[in-house]
This record gives sequence, C-alpha cells and structure tokens, in this order.
Amino acid sequence: MTVEEKAAQLGSVNADRVIEDGEVDREAAQQWLGDGIGHLTRIGGEGGLAPAEAARVTNELQEILGETRLGVPAIPHEECLSGYMGPEATTFPQMIGMASTWNPELLGEVTHTIRGELEALGTVHALSPVLDVARDLRWGRVEETFGEDPYLIARMAAEYVTGLQGEGREDGISATLKHFVGHGATDGGKNRSSLNVGPRELRETHLFPYEAVIAEAGAESVMNAYHDIDGVPCASSEWLLTDVLRGEFGFDGTVVSDYYSVRHLETEHRVAETKPEAGAAAVEAGIDVELPYTDYYGEFLVEAVENGNLAEETLDTSVRRVLREKVRKGVLDDPMADPDAAADAFHTEAAREVTARAARQSMTLLKNDDLLPLEGVESVAAIGPKVDDPKELMGDYAYAAHYPEEEYEADAVTPLAALEEREGISVSHEQGGTISGPSTEGFDDAVAAADDADVALAFVGARSAVDFSDVEADQEEKPSVPTSGEGCDVTDLGLPGVQDELVSRLAETDTPLAVVVVSGKPHSIEDIAESEGVDAVLYAWLPGDEGGPAIADTLFGETNPGGRLPVSLAKSVGQLPVYYNRKENTAEKEYVYTDSEPVYPFGYGLSYTDFSYDEFSLSTESVAPLGEFEASVTVENVGDRAGSEVVQLYATPENPSQARPVQELIAFERVELEAGESARVTFSLSATQLAFHDLAMDLAVEEGDYELRVGRSAADIEASDSLSVTGTKRVPRSGRTYFAESAVEEAAGSGGSQ
Amino acid sequence: MTVEEKAAQLGSVNADRVIEDGEVDREAAQQWLGDGIGHLTRIGGEGGLAPAEAARVTNELQEILGETRLGVPAIPHEECLSGYMGPEATTFPQMIGMASTWNPELLGEVTHTIRGELEALGTVHALSPVLDVARDLRWGRVEETFGEDPYLIARMAAEYVTGLQGEGREDGISATLKHFVGHGATDGGKNRSSLNVGPRELRETHLFPYEAVIAEAGAESVMNAYHDIDGVPCASSEWLLTDVLRGEFGFDGTVVSDYYSVRHLETEHRVAETKPEAGAAAVEAGIDVELPYTDYYGEFLVEAVENGNLAEETLDTSVRRVLREKVRKGVLDDPMADPDAAADAFHTEAAREVTARAARQSMTLLKNDDLLPLEGVESVAAIGPKVDDPKELMGDYAYAAHYPEEEYEADAVTPLAALEEREGISVSHEQGGTISGPSTEGFDDAVAAADDADVALAFVGARSAVDFSDVEADQEEKPSVPTSGEGCDVTDLGLPGVQDELVSRLAETDTPLAVVVVSGKPHSIEDIAESEGVDAVLYAWLPGDEGGPAIADTLFGETNPGGRLPVSLAKSVGQLPVYYNRKENTAEKEYVYTDSEPVYPFGYGLSYTDFSYDEFSLSTESVAPLGEFEASVTVENVGDRAGSEVVQLYATPENPSQARPVQELIAFERVELEAGESARVTFSLSATQLAFHDLAMDLAVEEGDYELRVGRSAADIEASDSLSVTGTKRVPRSGRTYFAESAVEEAAGSGGSQ
Repeated sequence: MTVEEKAAQLGSVNADRVIEDGEVDREAAQQWLGDGIGHLTRIGGEGGLAPAEAARVTNELQEILGETRLGVPAIPHEECLSGYMGPEATTFPQMIGMASTWNPELLGEVTHTIRGELEALGTVHALSPVLDVARDLRWGRVEETFGEDPYLIARMAAEYVTGLQGEGREDGISATLKHFVGHGATDGGKNRSSLNVGPRELRETHLFPYEAVIAEAGAESVMNAYHDIDGVPCASSEWLLTDVLRGEFGFDGTVVSDYYSVRHLETEHRVAETKPEAGAAAVEAGIDVELPYTDYYGEFLVEAVENGNLAEETLDTSVRRVLREKVRKGVLDDPMADPDAAADAFHTEAAREVTARAARQSMTLLKNDDLLPLEGVESVAAIGPKVDDPKELMGDYAYAAHYPEEEYEADAVTPLAALEEREGISVSHEQGGTISGPSTEGFDDAVAAADDADVALAFVGARSAVDFSDVEADQEEKPSVPTSGEGCDVTDLGLPGVQDELVSRLAETDTPLAVVVVSGKPHSIEDIAESEGVDAVLYAWLPGDEGGPAIADTLFGETNPGGRLPVSLAKSVGQLPVYYNRKENTAEKEYVYTDSEPVYPFGYGLSYTDFSYDEFSLSTESVAPLGEFEASVTVENVGDRAGSEVVQLYATPENPSQARPVQELIAFERVELEAGESARVTFSLSATQLAFHDLAMDLAVEEGDYELRVGRSAADIEASDSLSVTGTKRVPRSGRTYFAESAVEEAAGSGGSQ
Repeated sequence: MTVEEKAAQLGSVNADRVIEDGEVDREAAQQWLGDGIGHLTRIGGEGGLAPAEAARVTNELQEILGETRLGVPAIPHEECLSGYMGPEATTFPQMIGMASTWNPELLGEVTHTIRGELEALGTVHALSPVLDVARDLRWGRVEETFGEDPYLIARMAAEYVTGLQGEGREDGISATLKHFVGHGATDGGKNRSSLNVGPRELRETHLFPYEAVIAEAGAESVMNAYHDIDGVPCASSEWLLTDVLRGEFGFDGTVVSDYYSVRHLETEHRVAETKPEAGAAAVEAGIDVELPYTDYYGEFLVEAVENGNLAEETLDTSVRRVLREKVRKGVLDDPMADPDAAADAFHTEAAREVTARAARQSMTLLKNDDLLPLEGVESVAAIGPKVDDPKELMGDYAYAAHYPEEEYEADAVTPLAALEEREGISVSHEQGGTISGPSTEGFDDAVAAADDADVALAFVGARSAVDFSDVEADQEEKPSVPTSGEGCDVTDLGLPGVQDELVSRLAETDTPLAVVVVSGKPHSIEDIAESEGVDAVLYAWLPGDEGGPAIADTLFGETNPGGRLPVSLAKSVGQLPVYYNRKENTAEKEYVYTDSEPVYPFGYGLSYTDFSYDEFSLSTESVAPLGEFEASVTVENVGDRAGSEVVQLYATPENPSQARPVQELIAFERVELEAGESARVTFSLSATQLAFHDLAMDLAVEEGDYELRVGRSAADIEASDSLSVTGTKRVPRSGRTYFAESAVEEAAGSGGSQ
C-alpha cells in the first residue's frame, strides 16, 4: 500500500459529498474514493434514502471502491441510538427510557432489532451506545445516556452491544462506545466543555462502563469525546486512547473520531497549528479513523509522514485495525447488500412488538394518590403540547424527530390517538400551550376541558432534537424550541415555557389530574410532586413509535408500570449534583432553603401492586478479597395484580481508607411476579465488585466490613447485612468481575394470591 | 518531655472550657492545661471579652501554663478576616470587597491595623486569610475570598500576610492560609462537600496561591480544608500536607486543623474507626495542631504512640514546629500582654481612616446611565433592607455581625445615617421589605417615597453571617435569614426574598433609581442590569464600619468609584461556572436560552471619569523560557475628574501543547490619575509566569507565541501584542517568579487637563 492508500483507509466520506438527488455522483465518488476509504458516513441516514435506495447506493459506492487499485471496500456506518437514524426506521424508546426498564436483556432485543434494519442497508458499523455518566443534568444529551450510575450504564450498554454485534465479534454491526470519556460531567453541563475530574473519579465513574463493556461484550469500536480532561483533549490523549483503552482495558477494535473532533484540535483546543499537526496528533494518540469526512487525515497525514512528523509505523498500526474490522465484518468477502430485500427488514411486526414492550417497561410511575390505574372513567381531557405530535415521542438521533411531519411522516402512535382508540371513553383534546412559547392563551380552554372531564391528563415535557427546518427561525416566534438533545443544554431543569403554569391551572380544578412527562430531560418537578392538585405523575420519557399506546395502557392499567428512575430528579438546577452515589459530606450538606435530597431518588418507581422483602441473607459472613459470595432476598407480590419489581443491591464499606460514596449499586434484577407470587432472588457476587482505587491508583479490595443493602430504590433500603472482607489485595485485571449474576427462583409457598 | 507533654503541645483549648462569666475557671484551666497546651482558642473572641479583659484573661492562662512542669506558654489564636473577631474590633470591608480594590498594599494597611488590635490582646496567631478560589458562587464563603482568580488572590493574600505578620516572621501575628486546598470549588457549592478536580487544575488554580504566598510572604501557618479531594480527605492527606506543602512549597510553619476536621475523619469521611486512629492519621499527614479543642489528639495520640500506631518521631516533628512558632512569636520569652494598654489599641482614628479608605476603594460601579454622581439633587428616598442596619454592612467572621444590635452594638455608620448627615439633602426612608421574607406589604410605601423624591436609592443584598440568637427561630418567621457566609450555601444566586420585585417596582416609577448592592454574594443581577428603570448599580459589597459614608460619598461624587469585580457575575445559578479563565470550549459554548457570558465580567468596573490606553509595548519580541521582559502602556485620564483605573495584563499561549484558559491575569496595577493626567505603567515580568504543567505534571515554559493583552477588564481588552518564547524549559522551583512588579511613571505631556 502506498502512504496515500494507507491514509485513505483512515478517512471517511460523508453522504453529502458523493450523493446528489439520491444518486451516486460518480465523479465526486471517484475523486473522494480514488485511493480507497475507511468509512462511508451515513449513506442512508444523511442521504435520506429509503432502505432499498440506501442499499443500492451503498452497493454502488462499494463497487466504485472495488475498482480502485486495491479494491478494498469501505465500512458503511450509520448513527443509531433509539433506532437506525434514517428513513423508515423503527423508533424505540430513547435510552434514558430504556435505562428506566432496568432490563438489559430487553435492550438487547431492541438493538438486535436495530441490527436487522442496519444490516439490510449494507451498514456494518453503528455509532452507539452512549456510555456517558449523566452527572450534570443541564447537558442536553442526558436523554441519550443510561443515567447516572456506572453499574447500570455498564449493564445496559453491554447488552446494547451484544444485541447489535451478536455474541461473537465476527458478525453483526460494530458497536461504538462513546464518548470516551466523561462527556456527562463537563463544566456547566455544556456539550464539549472541559471535564474537570480527579483520577479516581475518572476511573471509577467514567471509565468503569468502558472497561466493563469491553470485558463483557467486546465492543468493536470506541469514539473519543470532544472535550479536554484537565487540559488534555481526549482526541489527542495517547494516555487515554492507547495506554488505558488498549493497554489496560485490552480493547482491540478501532477508535473513530467524534465528528469534527480532529478539527477541534486546531480550532478549539488550539493544540495543533496546522492540519497535518492535528491529524498526526490524533493518529498518534490512537484515533484510527477520522469522521465524518477526511478533513485532517488523508493528504495531511501523508504530508506529516513525508515531513517526518508522523511515523509510518504509527499509520500502519491504525490501518491494520481498520482492515481487521473490515475482515471481521465480512466486507472484504462481500460488502453487498440486497436492495430488493432491504425494505422487508423494515416495518416488521416483530420490531413493532419489541418497541411496544420496551415502551411499556420504561413507564415510570412517580406519584399516585389513588388515581391510577383509571377505573370507571368515562371521559378524559387530553391536554398539553406533548399529546398530539408523534415527533414528541422521540429523542435526539431518532430520524423522524429531526424533520417536520410534512417532510417526514413519523410512524408513531400519539397518546391522543391511543386514547381515542379506547372504547368506552370520550376524549377531549386541548393543547393548552406550546412546549416553550410564552403564550397562556389556551389555558382557559384547557381548564374548561379538564372541568368537563372525569380525569384530566396533562402531557408535558421538553422537545428533543432539532427540527432542522426551524433552526433559523426567530426564537421569539418558535413555539417549540428544543431544550433537550445534542447542543441543547439548559440553565434550568424546569419544564420549558409555561408548562408548569399550565399544570398549576389544571391542578386547581376539581378534576383529578395525572401529569404525564414525555421528555428526555430529568426535570426538576418538585412543585408538581408536592402539588395536592396533581394526583399522579407518570414519567414516560421518550417512548418511541408505540409510546402512545404504552402510556394509555399504563394509565388504564393494562400495563402495570415497573420502570425505575436511572437518574435522581433534582429539586432545581441550583441543587446539582444530586446523584445518589455522592460521598457523605456531599450528600448530607444542606442549602439555606433546601437539603441535598432529590425530589425522587435513583432507582425509584411505583407500581399498581405492592412488594414485600424478606429473608435477606448473605451466603457468608466473611469473604477473601478475591472471593465470591451470594446475596439473596425473597420478594413477594403482596398486592392484587401482576407487576414487576426491580430488586437493587447496594454496597458500602464501613471504614474505608478513603472517603467513599454513601453506597454503590452492585447488582439488580427486574422480577415479574403475579399477584401473590414470591421469588427468591440470588445475586452471585465477587468481592472484587467492592474494590476501589488506592492511593497509588491501583484497584484493590480492602480488608474490613462492608454493608450490603437491598432496596427498592437508593433511598428505600429494605434490609441490610454486613460482610467482612478478610484481607487487602490488589485486583489483577484478569481477576476482576464486573457484573453480578442473578437467579430468580420461585419461592416456597408462592404461586398464587393468598 | 513526656509523651503526654508532647501531645499537649499539639492540642488546644477553647475559651468556653476555661472561662466562666468572664473569669478564668482555674480548676478547669488546670485540668485542660496541666501538661501544657499548643493553642488557646479565641479567648477574647469566643469569650466575648473586652480588650483589657481579653488581655488579662489571656495573661492569667499563660501564668497557669507557667506553673506547669515545663512552663511553656500557649499560642493564643483568634479568628480574624475583615477584622479581629471579638468585641470592640474595627470592621473593615469583607474580603470580596477588599479584592475589589485591586489594591494589595491597602489590604496590607488593613491587616497591619488588625495586627495592632490582636497584639494588644496577647494574641499571636490568626486564622486567616482565605486563599480559596471562588469557583462555585453558591458557596456561602465566597464573600471571604479574594474572588475567582488565582493571581489576584495570591497578590492580595500575600499582602494580607505581610500586614499581619510584618516583613520578617519573628514578629507580628502568624497568618494562617486556608483552606488547604480547593474549598471554593466543592461539589454543589456546599461547605465541606467533596472536591472533584484534576491534578493540573488543582495545582494551577487551587494550589498556586499557597505556593506564591508561601514564597513571597512566608506565612507562618496553614489550615487544612474539610473536604476530600477525589476521595482523600485533606485532613489525612500526607501528599498534600507534607509532600506538596512542605516538600515542594518549602513551607516550614505549623499546620492547624480546621475546627473539628480531625473528628470528621471518623464521623464523616469514616477513614478512621477510633479517636486514636483519627488523631494519628491527622498527625501523620501533617496536621500539627488540633483546633479548637483537644478532642482527638492529647490522650488519644498518647494511646496511639503507646500502641505503636504512631511513631513518637512523628509526634516530635510536629512538637518541634509548634515550639518553633512559640519561639518565633516570642511567647517563650514573654507571652504577656498589657491589659492597661489594650483598650488604647482599639477605636483608633488611624484604624477608622484605614477602614474608610478601604471601603471607598472597594466601591464597584457596574452601571451608570448618567445618574451618578448625584448632582443638583435635593431629596432622596433611601429604600431597602440594607440601608439602616449597621450589621448589614458586615460579613461573616465580623464579630458584630453575629449578635443582634441590642446584645452587641456595632460601631458602624449606616448608609441611612450617612445620607442624613449630608447637608442640603432631604432623606426619606422606607425599608420596603425584609431581606429574605416574603412580605411585599411595604412596597407601596417604598414606591410612594420614591415618587416623592428626586432620586430613589435601593439598598439590597443578602444577609451574611448568622445571628446566633435567631438561629432557632422558625424559618417562616425570620425576616432576614442569612444566605451568605459559612454554612449558608444557596441554590439560587438572585437577591434573597422579594428584593428583586422591590427593585422592579421602584424601576417602574418615574424617579431615577440607583441600586446599591450591599452583599457579600456575587448575585445574578441580569434583570437589574438590563432594566431601563434602573439607572445605576453600585456594588458596595460589605464595606464595614465606614461603609455608609463610603457609599454616600460615592453616590454624591466625593469618591470616584474605582473598584473592579474580582469575580464574574453569573446570569443565573444554572449558568455556573462563569469565571473568566475557562478554556475556550467551556467559555464559548451556549445554552438554549443564553450564552456563557457573565452579566458583568471579571475585572469590570466603571468610573466617573474615562481612561484611554495607548502605546502598549513589550520590551522584546522574544524571550528565553526563564527570561524576563517588560510590558508597558500609557493610561490617560481623559475625563474631567480624578479617578483610578486598574490596568490589567492577561496572557494566553497561541498554540500550546494542551488546551489552556482563554487568558490568565499575570499583572495589574491600580493607578490614581488626576483629570488630564497620564501615566506610563510598566510591568516587569518573568517568562515563568507563562508556565503551565506538562503531561508529566512538571511546570514548564513552552516554546511558542504568547499573546499579551492589556485591558480594563477580562472582556474589554484595549491592546495586545505577541511575545515569542524561544524554547521549552522546566521551571526550577527556585527560579519561579510568581508576581509581576509594576512601576508607574508620569507620562510625557501629562499633568493637567488638555
């Protein structure tokens, strides 16, 4: 391979440079692909091509690559998060909602379904999942995350990867862990702003999900983060991208750049003066592929090699990784998709069933003063800006969310449509107001509708994602400015616009009121939580195509909500951070007018039934530092309908050598139980799950007593027991256990109502 | 010395254990002082003793110590910040106001005056200054700091120390640098909560002031911080208290514990299981003296030594340091004060003149739409909860601020009194509302008063410090809850209570309105700043005993305001952090409804005259990495009255190896100029002031171009020039220059109006 051909393998070309009016621009393609190419960027998604067209165009580009000197096909990649980000895709719940299911296996089903859609296009690589730990809720991308807890994130992300890639790594769609590392805790909650974090916090909070997912699910790709950590840009950090990621974590896939992040080394971080400098710095740090275009790689890497500023061996290392992915994904054998079959992979009944199930399991009931499930209700007033627009059920990176309905029709059932489909219920509808506009003109009509109904349902929340057709509009005139999603960071966590006021007005009526939050943002809803006029609060997140029926079925009781918060809800933006696993001195200090407790804690969620916890026990009183043990508890559904409980196991050292979080999640299991049924849940654990980093930053299990706590949320511990670790020992990387295993057995005397 | 006697030297006893009804409790004293003692804690201040009594009681305690086997006197220490925290003390402006003077020498005069009062009591050690870098404005103690910038802090603190200690270290009052380290950036802005910070940020932002002040002013003492840094409590961090502080920075004084922080090792951080463990951990880390009581040292250290858990040599090292301070401060020679002369050191005209001058220089004018200075005004309406209470001019750690007026009468002149003293002006007075209460009952009267006056003056702000007599009162009933000061952290930076609404109401009148913010909190005053009905905003901070006249003189023009913000004022709490020296990616990212710019930037302040900047020049185009250079600029008072300008010099590397702050302050000078006068300000600088920490965390000056910018604030740069550093070189500690020197010469053609 010539240096040019090598550099080409590290580059990419975006759909817009090689496609015109839905067809390959052959002249442009030959120009950009002449020496080969690493990745084809978002041919279907960015190109806006229907599946068959996306497959056909991708094939044609691969054919053109076949005609180059080396004939090496490209890796076509797409964005996906809650689904393929392209036309016709099924939209699943946004990830913050998927995390609320506390059901990793279900997420695996979701991503296995996404895989089917992507494979039909000839795509072999996807830019997800997001492993960022949501520590600053101002950040617009919190909705893309699995919440605030490293363990929950790792468990969810591992199944995301497995569902997408398959069990082995030779098949399926390459998953990309991003954004490496710490994007969820940047200064001011702003996208791309600096991360200021200590080395222990960096490892235990932000790096843990990567280490665990690489070990447990073998992700094929990692994407760097935009920001700098303590001054060192992630995009040029050899320590991070090579020493830690590959050297310590054993990652052997490709590192791709977050879009334009190589450029930022020159334009934003200013650590490079020229394009060859920026490109060389990125390759040397360990970024194998520049996305979404070859802007700083390609000819500039060639120049860097020629000038002696980049060793050709360094280039070769990255080229080998890219080619290895091409081998693993089979593109060297046969990169061609079948355009005639592509459409069949979309709009399948199976996908619809999976997204419907996922939406139902994500429903998180936060408050219920005997209102839900609705029974004997003949009329409802469906109110609010989030009830009647299919786009409003979707999060950022959902294709449909980015286009107005007249431009791209979403295949989603709204809450209003789902309510109207129900028999025996009359539904009135008033929008009341817009999502972010200031007008209260519609409030009186909304209140009147509530007055006339048996129950009022207020659908409120933030708009996620940017409707690109509207970006240039005057802010004053925009009725629905996105306040969640990438680039939409906020200084206030309240409901946007006048929605809080709308809820207040509805709360003043005599009609019972349920507030349904349809939003990817963890809002500060203290007023709603405490309002006597609000009888129920259901957090529906952004539930996707089947969100409307999932919400309606939950309100009326066909679905018993079992979602649990993956993130603590703050009382106000000024109270941040409120994540549960703060240290004691942070968690317990109070402010003048408020404490440091969230409105609703991590792990919290109600059900239409009740569960009891009994017989919590540990298999041993003491364990060797690298030893194993079990924790078991019997959970019984003591109510009168089937439901699911998420059994959560937290641990904390009683006298550690350092200040530690008040507790940390180390195991959980979502258990479905019929009325009267009980189950014995047993977690198989390793003492290495209790390890933390000592003063020398070595991971070690420390001698001493640990409290193991089982509970229904971080703030609602049902039982606890003490475990003694008999010595202090460093944890060899090969000997580390990341995830607990759980077994659920029918408990004695269980099986029916009593 | 026996082990008991050694341990005793590391302990302390608080006034309340040895004083009863103003007299020494001899039995208790003999019990607590039997083996000797390290420190006597706040005999005058905590004891509430008038100066002569404080001196007499201190002498008596020293006499009792003289009767012990070894006869070693104690180090009597007191709190001081804006003055001695005890009866009869002069109260100077709170430190955030002193920082606004940008006049370190003036601060030296202030603390030299404080020294005089303390020495009269027999005190030899004071627990100040605060070197914390105010990065989270929610923190109640921001008012105690010198603001957000490490360089400004270091410059101010160095003079604070010198004024208190004297030039040498053998005389004067030992200054205590606190809180080591990083208390101004803890999680959630909460006192004592965890600090999450990277190693480079820790050194360059938080450690820099300590390093600089130790090098430049030789502080005698350092106090640890309460919190943990990345899990390691400061109180048990040998790396911090010994390796860095002594090993790297060359500190050779005593480290004293923040009150109760040894206890927190057991009760809050949980890194110790017992008192001997906690005590031993603190001594081993490097805390020489436990304050304010011997609760975890004393017998518990003896036990630790006897059990072999603490080496006696370690104890000896700390004992030697304490004894060395006693030698240096002369207490071994003669610890006795002169009770008969003590009162003479208080209420001096000289002290009054210094605090008056300091208050005037701290006045910071933020907005002025041709209202100020007031001219031809016959009547003013003095409105608001901060106009008529002498306590409201004082900050936390000011003695008078902690007691209601009936219990301890403040010797301060209120703004109302100062206004009423002016001839030819009629003054009406309406409080309008309380500081933090919800009542708007007085608004109508306030508006009526404004309507009837030529000018309305609204005095608003937070209450600082806790009135201890009121702490137990029902919050609802409290008209003035403190929302600033230690333990008073907030989730909102707005004016407390309904004060914003009061200002709005006054702004709606046709009467011109000046808002005077009397507060230690940097409030989010965007609405006030942008209100067309608010004609002027004067930030008076907490100006102390002579605050009223300083404010009145500034409003009427006898004083031309020259204060400059030592901290950026945020638009809202949700916008934090807004400090000026963020990195570009943090500083420039926007939120959905707002940008990341503060309302008013660091270094900003108006004057009643205008200044021009000309002929900015560097003495060289290139400099060796350890070389020196000069930057000069001519500043001219082009207005028609005398005034002062703070010339600020910022630097930024153009292509550093790491992402760096957008700029950093490296020199400043407050220049007083008559109308028409001009001056040539020359800063003598070292290239080492451009250094930062490389990947190996070594401090190095890096080859490349640097932009030097001179301006009137961080956001108002008047001129810039480029300097080339000719090589990269590590900075040996002995070769580091911390502070620029400045020279002000009359410029050619200067000297009068033109």
